[in-house]
Amino acid sequence: MSGCSRIAVALVHYPVLNPQGERATTAITAMDIHDFARTAAFYNVSPVYFVHPAAAMQSLFYDVQSHWLSGKAGVRNPARREMMRHLKMVDSLDVVLEDGPYQVWYTSANPPVSSCVKPESLMDIAGNHLIVFGTGSGLDLSGLPDANGWLSALQGVGSIRHLSVRAALSIYLDRLYRSDLEA
Amino acid sequence: MSGCSRIAVALVHYPVLNPQGERATTAITAMDIHDFARTAAFYNVSPVYFVHPAAAMQSLFYDVQSHWLSGKAGVRNPARREMMRHLKMVDSLDVVLEDGPYQVWYTSANPPVSSCVKPESLMDIAGNHLIVFGTGSGLDLSGLPDANGWLSALQGVGSIRHLSVRAALSIYLDRLYRSDLEA
Repeated sequence: MSGCSRIAVALVHYPVLNPQGERATTAITAMDIHDFARTAAFYNVSPVYFVHPAAAMQSLFYDVQSHWLSGKAGVRNPARREMMRHLKMVDSLDVVLEDGPYQVWYTSANPPVSSCVKPESLMDIAGNHLIVFGTGSGLDLSGLPDANGWLSALQGVGSIRHLSVRAALSIYLDRLYRSDLEA
Repeated sequence: MSGCSRIAVALVHYPVLNPQGERATTAITAMDIHDFARTAAFYNVSPVYFVHPAAAMQSLFYDVQSHWLSGKAGVRNPARREMMRHLKMVDSLDVVLEDGPYQVWYTSANPPVSSCVKPESLMDIAGNHLIVFGTGSGLDLSGLPDANGWLSALQGVGSIRHLSVRAALSIYLDRLYRSDLEA
C-alpha cells in the first residue's frame, strides 16, 4: 500500500436494476449485514454504508445492529459487536459522499466502460476510496452520482458469471489487500 | 494449472464444533446453498457436497435444488438451474470419499498443524482435490476421516478474523485460480 489512505464500501439497495433493466428497490437482508460486516472487518475496511431510503428497511438494519451493540449478544461475542460499529445506515449514496471526501468506484459484472481500474491498483491511488456494490441486477446509474471510475469486473474460469454480492465483496477486498499480505 | 485435474468442495454441517468446542450440528441454510453454488460455478468447481445426516435438513436442500432444476424458476433463470446441478446432498464426508478418488484438504481459521499448503499451490499437485469447509466453529476432527493436509488459513489485515464460510470459499477459490486468470 502506498498512496491509499482508507477504503470504505457501500451496498446500494436503491436505485438498482431488476432483471428486466428497470429501476427497482431490493430488501436489506440480515445475512448481508453480517457478511459485509465480517468481511470488511477482516480487511480493516470501514465504514460499511448500507444504502436504502425506506424507513422499514432502516428499522431492520438498526434492529440487527443494536442487537449486537447493546445486548447480551455483543457481550458474548465482542468481535461481532466491534465489527457492527463500522456499519452506517444512509438514505442515499449522496449522503455517503457528504460523509467523507471519497473517490467513488463502482463495480459491476459488466462495467459500461472499457478502461477500468484493477482492484489491486486502487491501493496506489492517493486518498480515500469508496467501493460501491449494487444489489439486484446491479446499480442504476441514471439515479446515481458520477463515479471516479469502475473497478475491473471479476473474471472466473467457469462459463457462469453470477457471483453473489457477498462473494464479490470478499474477492475484491482480498485482491486489494493481497499484495500487502504477501509482502 | 498443471497437475491438478479437478477441484470439488464440501460444506460440513456435522460433525462441527460449537463455540464451546463441543460436537454440534448446524442447519443447512438456503443462502449457503445459493452462495456455494454460485461461487463454485464461477470457478468451474464441481461437485459441491452438502454434508448433513438429518433427513429434515436433506429435505430442505432438495426443496431448494428441485425448485431450480424442475420448476419455472429454472426456465426463467437457466444459469441458476445449471449451477444447481452441481450440488450433491450426502450423509457424511465418508460418502463423499466413496464418490471419487479425492485428496482431502481441510480448512480452518486456525489449522492444527504448522505445515499447510497454500491454496495457489494446490493447482500444482496432481489428482482430484476436495476442499472441506466447516460451518459453526469449525470441523470436529475427532469425527472426520484423515485429510491429506490443511490449506493455509486466510490472513486479513484487520484485527478481527471471523470470515463467513461463504466469504472463505470465495477467497480460497479466487486464490486457487488467480494465476490462471492472470496468465
